[in-house]
Amino acid sequence: MEILNRLEREWRAGADAANTHATADTILAAEADGTASHGVLQATGYAAAIRAGLVNGTAAPRLLPGPEAAVIVAGDGGSSATAYALGLPALAERAEALGAAVLCVRNVAHYAAMWHEVEFLAERGLAAFACTANFPYVAPHGGRRPFFGTNPIAFAFPRTDARPVVFDFAVSTMARGSIQIALRAGANVPAGVGIDRDGRPTRDPAAILAGAQTAFGDHKGAALALMVELLAAGIVGDVFSDEAEAEAIAGGVPVGGVFVLALSPERLGGPDALSRAEAFLGRLEAEPGARLPGARRHARRNSSAPYVVPASLMAELRALAGD
Amino acid sequence: MEILNRLEREWRAGADAANTHATADTILAAEADGTASHGVLQATGYAAAIRAGLVNGTAAPRLLPGPEAAVIVAGDGGSSATAYALGLPALAERAEALGAAVLCVRNVAHYAAMWHEVEFLAERGLAAFACTANFPYVAPHGGRRPFFGTNPIAFAFPRTDARPVVFDFAVSTMARGSIQIALRAGANVPAGVGIDRDGRPTRDPAAILAGAQTAFGDHKGAALALMVELLAAGIVGDVFSDEAEAEAIAGGVPVGGVFVLALSPERLGGPDALSRAEAFLGRLEAEPGARLPGARRHARRNSSAPYVVPASLMAELRALAGD
Repeated sequence: MEILNRLEREWRAGADAANTHATADTILAAEADGTASHGVLQATGYAAAIRAGLVNGTAAPRLLPGPEAAVIVAGDGGSSATAYALGLPALAERAEALGAAVLCVRNVAHYAAMWHEVEFLAERGLAAFACTANFPYVAPHGGRRPFFGTNPIAFAFPRTDARPVVFDFAVSTMARGSIQIALRAGANVPAGVGIDRDGRPTRDPAAILAGAQTAFGDHKGAALALMVELLAAGIVGDVFSDEAEAEAIAGGVPVGGVFVLALSPERLGGPDALSRAEAFLGRLEAEPGARLPGARRHARRNSSAPYVVPASLMAELRALAGD
Repeated sequence: MEILNRLEREWRAGADAANTHATADTILAAEADGTASHGVLQATGYAAAIRAGLVNGTAAPRLLPGPEAAVIVAGDGGSSATAYALGLPALAERAEALGAAVLCVRNVAHYAAMWHEVEFLAERGLAAFACTANFPYVAPHGGRRPFFGTNPIAFAFPRTDARPVVFDFAVSTMARGSIQIALRAGANVPAGVGIDRDGRPTRDPAAILAGAQTAFGDHKGAALALMVELLAAGIVGDVFSDEAEAEAIAGGVPVGGVFVLALSPERLGGPDALSRAEAFLGRLEAEPGARLPGARRHARRNSSAPYVVPASLMAELRALAGD
């Protein structure tokens, strides 16, 4: 993509080659899978954040000392992609050696979809779980004010005969971006997505953005939102969502911690663990109507259908690239 | 409780002291917290299962060789409580030494609530996650037939100033026991709980029990149900829910694997990890209307209100005890 080459030059004004390539790789991977929300669209935000000094474009992540079953990375305020280039291969090695290991990434801006990191590990034969916390958007169970982040969680498991099974979702009922899209379109959102400033259920996107989003699945999703805070901030050692700098100050850049767990199916479940799981996933695929998470995204990756950058995004990219 | 002493004698006919005490402890802990569904009520099922030869009342769990960050326990077909007496202290020690560790428990009957194991670890200063899979009851996303278990997950995090924060829920929209209660009461269940044999939504408990339960929160809960299968069966190395012996053959005894993860907040997040999490949980408690998971159960434990065994259960217990 010519436009991305231009953007790379733009980024280089404030970013070094390592940071540029790590982030561009993540963005292009999302684009290739048809995940437009985390694709080239993110390039504009990343470039603007570097320019505004909100993300460190020359971040030099480093490994911190820690216990044996952990890889701890100081992200240096850069993109999560740069920290992962250092942390994920080290995590994979540790999990293969010990059976299980965790990666605690501190002080990074997490722009990308979370399937990226767990799929990386699953393609190396490991099961993986990841989560991150960000701005206070979601009300706790019974609460009326935003407190938890939308707190995405992701999981992947390797397959012997196909791409890994992968899922990735926010614990909020609806993605915040989708509420913003409804606002711009002048449309209501479905019932149950959020509450207004007085804690009353509403379908008005403006009222929800000023009030609070709900967690999916009532008290169960709210419990998961809490779990993500306690992992991505409590265990990782970084800020909780309600401590994050106000969205206006941070320019919407979600800077904080990421928690990643990697498990070796073969070292834990035995030499036939992967083939037994493969047989299970085959039976699941054979269930009438059943859909495996991640399947649609992988189908998109395997297809040759070209991605068309919308005209408005193209104009924005051109402006950023100084055209 | 006099009646429990009698039951212990009854169990001893088919169970040794170690198995009896481990299970009685778990049952009494649930009872003390007002979790009647997993309290003395379970004693009847446990006694009947031992008598029918479905649970090994003289199980001698043993540690299997495994990688360093894992404790692998062969449960010998006994109660999960007996396997935990061996596995949980070993897991805690391993997690403290390495920062993170997992416990894979194979071939046990899991009667108890899942908060028991994660709370045990959180009371020793560790964060913990646990899950188990059982009979095929829940339809996959888009599917029409039962395939996943109700697959409970539990999480706990230690607190410095209070009992651990703990949650524990099934990934099915409604607990199977609650659907059975509705059936006996001749009542409908709320919309969204399940589908009939033809995949049509229904509120009729009999049609759902013959058809399939739904996962909570639509495709997100269904993805979690899949994750639990891949952890509790795939990683642990035990049967998937759809491979479990038919409920009728197994007498409803959920025999299979349990996955437990333990993390050291201080070794991973740093020396102030627990105090920072405590401050966060304090802010959450101060949110108007917000309720922390586990709080009601702990309030019950701290109260001196006596538990009254319902007359019908008492009669059943008396019959089992040979009165």
